[in-house]
Amino acid sequence: MRPVDLIRKKRDGGEHSAKEISSLVEAFTRGDVPDYQMSAWMMAVLLRGMSSAETAFLTDAMMRSGSVMDLGELPGVKVDKHSTGGVGDKTSLILAPIVAVGGLIVPMISGRGLGHTGGTLDKLESIPGFNVNLSPGEFLRVLRETSCALAGQTAELVPADKKMYALRDVTGTVESAPLICASIMSKKLAEGIDALVLDVKTGSGAFMKRQEDAEHLAQMMVDTGRRMGKKVAALITDMDQPLGRTVGNSLEVAECLEILGGTRHAMSEDLRYLSIELAAWMFHLGGRVSDVESGRQLAEEIIAQGAALGKFRELCRLQGAAEAARLPLAKFTAEFKAATDGFIARIQCEQVGLASLVLGGGRNKQDDAIDHAVGLELHKKLGDAVKAGERIATVHYNDPARLPEALRLLQEAYDIGPKPLNAQRILVKNIIGGEPSAFSSS
Amino acid sequence: MRPVDLIRKKRDGGEHSAKEISSLVEAFTRGDVPDYQMSAWMMAVLLRGMSSAETAFLTDAMMRSGSVMDLGELPGVKVDKHSTGGVGDKTSLILAPIVAVGGLIVPMISGRGLGHTGGTLDKLESIPGFNVNLSPGEFLRVLRETSCALAGQTAELVPADKKMYALRDVTGTVESAPLICASIMSKKLAEGIDALVLDVKTGSGAFMKRQEDAEHLAQMMVDTGRRMGKKVAALITDMDQPLGRTVGNSLEVAECLEILGGTRHAMSEDLRYLSIELAAWMFHLGGRVSDVESGRQLAEEIIAQGAALGKFRELCRLQGAAEAARLPLAKFTAEFKAATDGFIARIQCEQVGLASLVLGGGRNKQDDAIDHAVGLELHKKLGDAVKAGERIATVHYNDPARLPEALRLLQEAYDIGPKPLNAQRILVKNIIGGEPSAFSSS
Repeated sequence: MRPVDLIRKKRDGGEHSAKEISSLVEAFTRGDVPDYQMSAWMMAVLLRGMSSAETAFLTDAMMRSGSVMDLGELPGVKVDKHSTGGVGDKTSLILAPIVAVGGLIVPMISGRGLGHTGGTLDKLESIPGFNVNLSPGEFLRVLRETSCALAGQTAELVPADKKMYALRDVTGTVESAPLICASIMSKKLAEGIDALVLDVKTGSGAFMKRQEDAEHLAQMMVDTGRRMGKKVAALITDMDQPLGRTVGNSLEVAECLEILGGTRHAMSEDLRYLSIELAAWMFHLGGRVSDVESGRQLAEEIIAQGAALGKFRELCRLQGAAEAARLPLAKFTAEFKAATDGFIARIQCEQVGLASLVLGGGRNKQDDAIDHAVGLELHKKLGDAVKAGERIATVHYNDPARLPEALRLLQEAYDIGPKPLNAQRILVKNIIGGEPSAFSSS
Repeated sequence: MRPVDLIRKKRDGGEHSAKEISSLVEAFTRGDVPDYQMSAWMMAVLLRGMSSAETAFLTDAMMRSGSVMDLGELPGVKVDKHSTGGVGDKTSLILAPIVAVGGLIVPMISGRGLGHTGGTLDKLESIPGFNVNLSPGEFLRVLRETSCALAGQTAELVPADKKMYALRDVTGTVESAPLICASIMSKKLAEGIDALVLDVKTGSGAFMKRQEDAEHLAQMMVDTGRRMGKKVAALITDMDQPLGRTVGNSLEVAECLEILGGTRHAMSEDLRYLSIELAAWMFHLGGRVSDVESGRQLAEEIIAQGAALGKFRELCRLQGAAEAARLPLAKFTAEFKAATDGFIARIQCEQVGLASLVLGGGRNKQDDAIDHAVGLELHKKLGDAVKAGERIATVHYNDPARLPEALRLLQEAYDIGPKPLNAQRILVKNIIGGEPSAFSSS
C-alpha cells in the first residue's frame, strides 16, 4: 500500500494492520515517506482515533525503529515508572534507589523539563558532576553495579519518536491520545523492562486538565503495554497543586534527599506518600511482593534503614558526581506573602511552574540553558489557613530583574478564599489496570 | 497567528478569518509555510469542513496568489463555463463559439484529461497546429479578435492552486469539497469573468457518484462565486453514460463540428441538448437574454445560421491551426458487440473512459503522451434495445496490443438486461442557484 492509500484509509476511519503501520513508520524513519505525508496521516489519526490494536502496533513499530536495550544479562526483574509530568514532581529520584534496594532493576531513561513542567535529567544535573549522558555501555555498567541508572535518551533509542515528535510539535498533532501513548510507551518499552507503573497526572498543573482524559490515556497505555506482554498499571494522581514543598532543580534534589534520609516535613508528605505508593506498585508488578500493602511496608523499611539514601549516594558516585559535592544555592531569596486572611482556595499549578521557569529554572525551548539553583520553596498547601502577611512561598533567585514576573505569576496562581475547602483532597484518584488479582507474583 | 495555531484552530473545528486564510495561503505560496504544515491543515479542513465564508476567503486568497486577468479593455460581459469532468464531455468546444457569436466574451482557461476523464486542451490539440499554450498577451489578442479563446493555465495564474493540488494528490486531501470548490473557483475567477455556469456531473462516470454530493459541491461553488460578486448557476447533470457518441480526442472534435454545423445524429442529441442548455444559461447570466428559454432559441439560431461553425473555424485559425488541416484517424477499427439480446441496463461510465485511456487516448500521469486519433464511437445509449451480435461501440486504435484490454473494459462497462428501463433518463437533474428571478438581466 502506498503512503497516500494509508492516509486515505485512516482519513476515512479505517483500521490499519500491523504491517501497514510498521511499513509506514519504517519508511518515515528511513526518510522514504516525506514529512508532508506523515503530518497528514497524524492529523487523520488525531481526528479519527486509533483502536487499541493499532495503538499497540504503532508503539511496537516505533520501538523497533531503533535499538531495544537487551538487559538479559542482568539477573532480575526490570521495572520502571513514567510520569506524564507536573510541577514539583520528583518521585523518580526517590523511587529508583528504593526499588533498587528492594531487589528489582530500574533502568530509567528520563527526559528534560519543557514549559511549566520539570524534568528528571535537569534535577539530576543540579548535582555537580552528575552525568546523565551515558552510552548504552555505561548505562549497563551502572545498572550492573547498583541496580538502578538514570540517564537521557540516546540517539539509538526510538529514532521514529524523535522525528514524529518534532513534526507533531509544528503541525498541531501533539494532543492525540494514541500518538501520546505510542510516544511514551515505545520509549519505555525500548528500555527492555518487564513491568511499568504509570503516574498519569490530572489537574491544573497537568497536560490533562480533566480526570476523564487522564483515565482515557492511562487505559490506552495499560492496554498497549499488556498487548506487548508487559505488566502495567496506571495511577491517576492529583496535579492541582505542586507535589512536595519545592519547585526548581537543586531545591527539589534537596527535598528528595530529606525524604530518602527519613526526615519528615509536613509540606512534603504528599510527595513521600506518592513515592512510596509508586514504589509499592513497582514492587508488586515486579513480583517482589504479593500485594501492594507489602510493597508499601518494604519501601518504608528501606527508607528507615537508611538504605535508600545510601543507594542514591552510590548512584551519584557511579554517575560521576563529586564525593562532597554541594547543591548550588541561589544568591537571593524573597517572600511571596498572603494579601488577606483566609484559606488557600485554588492553586493554578501551571503558573507556579512558570514562575520557576521565568527565574531560569525551566526552559521554553528545548535548547534553553537552565539555572539549577533557582526555584520556589512552598509553605502552604490547598486548604491551608493563612494570615495576611504570612508567607506562601519563598522565591530563590539569582537575577533580580526576573523576580517581578515570578511574583506576578505566583499572585496569579494562588487564590485565597474565606472558607476552608469542604472536601479532603485525594492524591491518588484512581488506579487503572490495577486490580491486584490481575497480576500474579510469578 | 503562527501556522501551527491555524492548524490547531481548524483541527478543533474553529472558523478562520479572511486574514488568517490569506496569510496562510500567501506564506505557503512564498514557501514560508512548509508542505508538512499545509498538508496537516488541509487534512483538518477535509475532516472538519469549512463555512461558506471561509471557502470564499480561501478562493479569494488563492485567486490573488497570482495575477488576475484584467479584461477591462474588452467591451462586453465575460462569461465562462466549468465542468467537473466526465466521459465524452465536450460541450466547451460547442459552447464557446455559440456564446461568442451571441455577443458575450468567453475567456476559457481549460485543463487536460486525467484518468478516465478527457480534457478540453487535449481535444483541441488533436486539431493539427492548434496552440493551447497562449501567453496572456496572445490570449487577449485572440479574445479581442473573435470574443472567445481556449487555452491552458499559465504559470502566473493561481500558483497557490498548483502547489496545493500537488500536495493534496499525495496526502489524501483531494476529496474535500471546500478545497475542490476553492481550486475550481479561484482558477475560473482569475479569468476576470462576470458570470459562470457550472456543469456539475453526477453518476458512474463522474467524480461525485452521488447526486447529493454533486449538489453540495455545486451549492458551495455558487455561494462562493456570489460572495465574490459574480453571477453563478450550477446545472447538476447526468454522467451515468458517456455524453454524445464519441470518446477520444479527434473523434470528439469531429462530433462537435457536426453539431456546430447543424447536422443531427440521434446518439449526439444529449450532447447537443446540454450544450444548448449551458449556452442558454451563459446568455442568461451574462445579461444577453431575459430568460433561459430565449437563450435556447438564440443558441439554436446561431447554429442554424452556420455562425457557430464559422466562429469555431475562425478560432482555430487564430490559435494556429492549419487551414485545410484534417483530424488524425486511427489505423484500425474493431467492433464491440452485444453478447445477448436485450436492453442496455447499465453503463459503468468510468470503464468506458478507461477503455479510451488504455488505447492511448488519455493519461494516467500528468506528463503521459496522448494518441489523439484513438477512441470509441458509441452506438447505444442506456435503455436502447440490442440484438446479440449487434455492435455497441466501434474501437478506433493504432496499437493492436492495446485492443484486448480496451475490449475487456467495454465488456465490464456494459450490462445488458432483459427489460427496457422503467423510467426515462433525465439529463439535467437539478439547477442550483438558478431561479431566473434571482438574476436580473442588468
